[in-house]
Amino acid sequence: MQGTMLYGPRDVRFEERPDPEIIEPTDAILKLSAACVCGSDLWPYCGVDPVKQPIPMGHEYVGIVEEVGGAVRNIKPGQFVVGSFFASDNTCEICRSGYQSSCIHRQPGAPTGAQAQYARIPLADGTLVATPGLPPADLIPSLLSASDVLGTGWFGAVAAAVGPGKTVAVVGDGAVGLLAVLAARELGAERIIAMSRHEDRQKLALEFGATDIVTERGDEGAAKIKELTDGLGAHSVIEAVGTHEAMMQSIRSTRPGGHVGFVGVLHDVEIPGEEFFFSHVHLYGGPAPVRRFLPELVNLIWSRKINPGKVFDLTLPLEQVAEGYRAMDERRAIKALLRP
Amino acid sequence: MQGTMLYGPRDVRFEERPDPEIIEPTDAILKLSAACVCGSDLWPYCGVDPVKQPIPMGHEYVGIVEEVGGAVRNIKPGQFVVGSFFASDNTCEICRSGYQSSCIHRQPGAPTGAQAQYARIPLADGTLVATPGLPPADLIPSLLSASDVLGTGWFGAVAAAVGPGKTVAVVGDGAVGLLAVLAARELGAERIIAMSRHEDRQKLALEFGATDIVTERGDEGAAKIKELTDGLGAHSVIEAVGTHEAMMQSIRSTRPGGHVGFVGVLHDVEIPGEEFFFSHVHLYGGPAPVRRFLPELVNLIWSRKINPGKVFDLTLPLEQVAEGYRAMDERRAIKALLRP
Repeated sequence: MQGTMLYGPRDVRFEERPDPEIIEPTDAILKLSAACVCGSDLWPYCGVDPVKQPIPMGHEYVGIVEEVGGAVRNIKPGQFVVGSFFASDNTCEICRSGYQSSCIHRQPGAPTGAQAQYARIPLADGTLVATPGLPPADLIPSLLSASDVLGTGWFGAVAAAVGPGKTVAVVGDGAVGLLAVLAARELGAERIIAMSRHEDRQKLALEFGATDIVTERGDEGAAKIKELTDGLGAHSVIEAVGTHEAMMQSIRSTRPGGHVGFVGVLHDVEIPGEEFFFSHVHLYGGPAPVRRFLPELVNLIWSRKINPGKVFDLTLPLEQVAEGYRAMDERRAIKALLRP
Repeated sequence: MQGTMLYGPRDVRFEERPDPEIIEPTDAILKLSAACVCGSDLWPYCGVDPVKQPIPMGHEYVGIVEEVGGAVRNIKPGQFVVGSFFASDNTCEICRSGYQSSCIHRQPGAPTGAQAQYARIPLADGTLVATPGLPPADLIPSLLSASDVLGTGWFGAVAAAVGPGKTVAVVGDGAVGLLAVLAARELGAERIIAMSRHEDRQKLALEFGATDIVTERGDEGAAKIKELTDGLGAHSVIEAVGTHEAMMQSIRSTRPGGHVGFVGVLHDVEIPGEEFFFSHVHLYGGPAPVRRFLPELVNLIWSRKINPGKVFDLTLPLEQVAEGYRAMDERRAIKALLRP
């Protein structure tokens, strides 16, 4: 088959790769219907995360089950399925408590890479969620978004304790931040402040349910959030960037007793204890347990109650994957969808 | 009157001080019945927190209302009252949400110092809770503990989401840690692991409800907690020290999806983002909103359901306050009660 490898900073190659095969009896092989480039793929692409050897890329996917291992009971060939960036058994004590992305048998979700024609998915029964039938083509982008960016934005909102009557601020206007806005609306937030300085992203944020746009950043951004909330700060702030500045902006934008839900992969962040102590802010996040939310998200998409697929503003044939990375890196695209 | 001043590291003086007077119409003047030395008093006493000028000491107190300002409505002269280390109006939006220690009108709880014969208490109506009547002498230590160490340990347990069926670990065997053990028992924890290497404190922890004692510290301590919990870690960990080592021990002792409640005043703590991200641990704490819990705690003490006053293992006349500091600093005492 053909698939995507990252050889080093800004060196993405679409090339001949071995066909994935069943290795463990709990594996499934998918023929991928769509994949995409993740904001987190840009960390190694930009050289922030070192690339020691060529790595297969892609961990967001939807596709049709081609084959399953002998121990797979619930997932069947022919089903259309959604998975996520970690494979989980969905039966261990940690999974059962809702933290499947920390499953005690956790594995990479698509070890052979999902920016490819086919992928091997470990722990298929625990990891994959089948849709009610084969989806119409126009639902595929939304189902694909559930695989990571929607599930991650949703977790950010849940981690930030978003709910009715709450004022929510979202730090970060990438696909995850924009879908955190959508999640906050679905979870009943009263007011949703999107922090963005890009006109196209502001527009999408408003479409997804944002009630206010703030263009200031860092401490100025935090001051603006306080100004909009009687000097108190937001009840819930979703951190969807992963930098020290964004984390501190989030903590400083939250009222005492409020919640920061952080879903940007933290890089070079050091949270200063004394400031954090007196901030009185609940801090929670990490790799989203997307599997917890998948059945609900698939239902919302299937019934056309939400249309998160709008975050894909660039669609490319899979073989042009390198252009997808470039467009996202240069901020020409919010998120690139790849069609095998 | 006579009261306690800290002039510099290990320089505690009991000396003549001005009688406190009503300054704001919301103030009350108390004749103190008991006060004590706090673990947090040891930070400036040891020189970790700089002492730029002589400061009045003491922020834990019970006493009888001597006089109230013209705007005080609910607190009356003659009542026996319990307060805490921050004064709060108990009416602002932050107070009403249960975070009185971040009240928008927050002030020091006893600005004239509570290791004294009398004290001025700001925002008396919001800050003070009256007992049902004058307490018998044997209840005074427990009521005094509610003022800070019990309220703080209780908040630590609530912040760590302690509840029925949970396994709880407590890092720190000072008065706050020991009373966090008691709080965890009252909140229904199934298993309570006290981390202590001092025999007298271990004994009190067991009396307060600990089911296990772990003597290891730091990463060894965290490894021991994992060993005792099927490799997963505790559901809830209460950090009652405030050092970087104790914070990291707490995070590393908690299972993914679990909760750290931190109540030790954080000193030189820097929480590393990447490890924290993948720990999947909820982190919450800060200055305890003791006022939230006071009515319930006073009831539990008044009805003799709990006996937190046992943490006072040294009672001194107020004028020997300097010996109280020494005994706690040298770990000869868990906590010193002072009788004016």
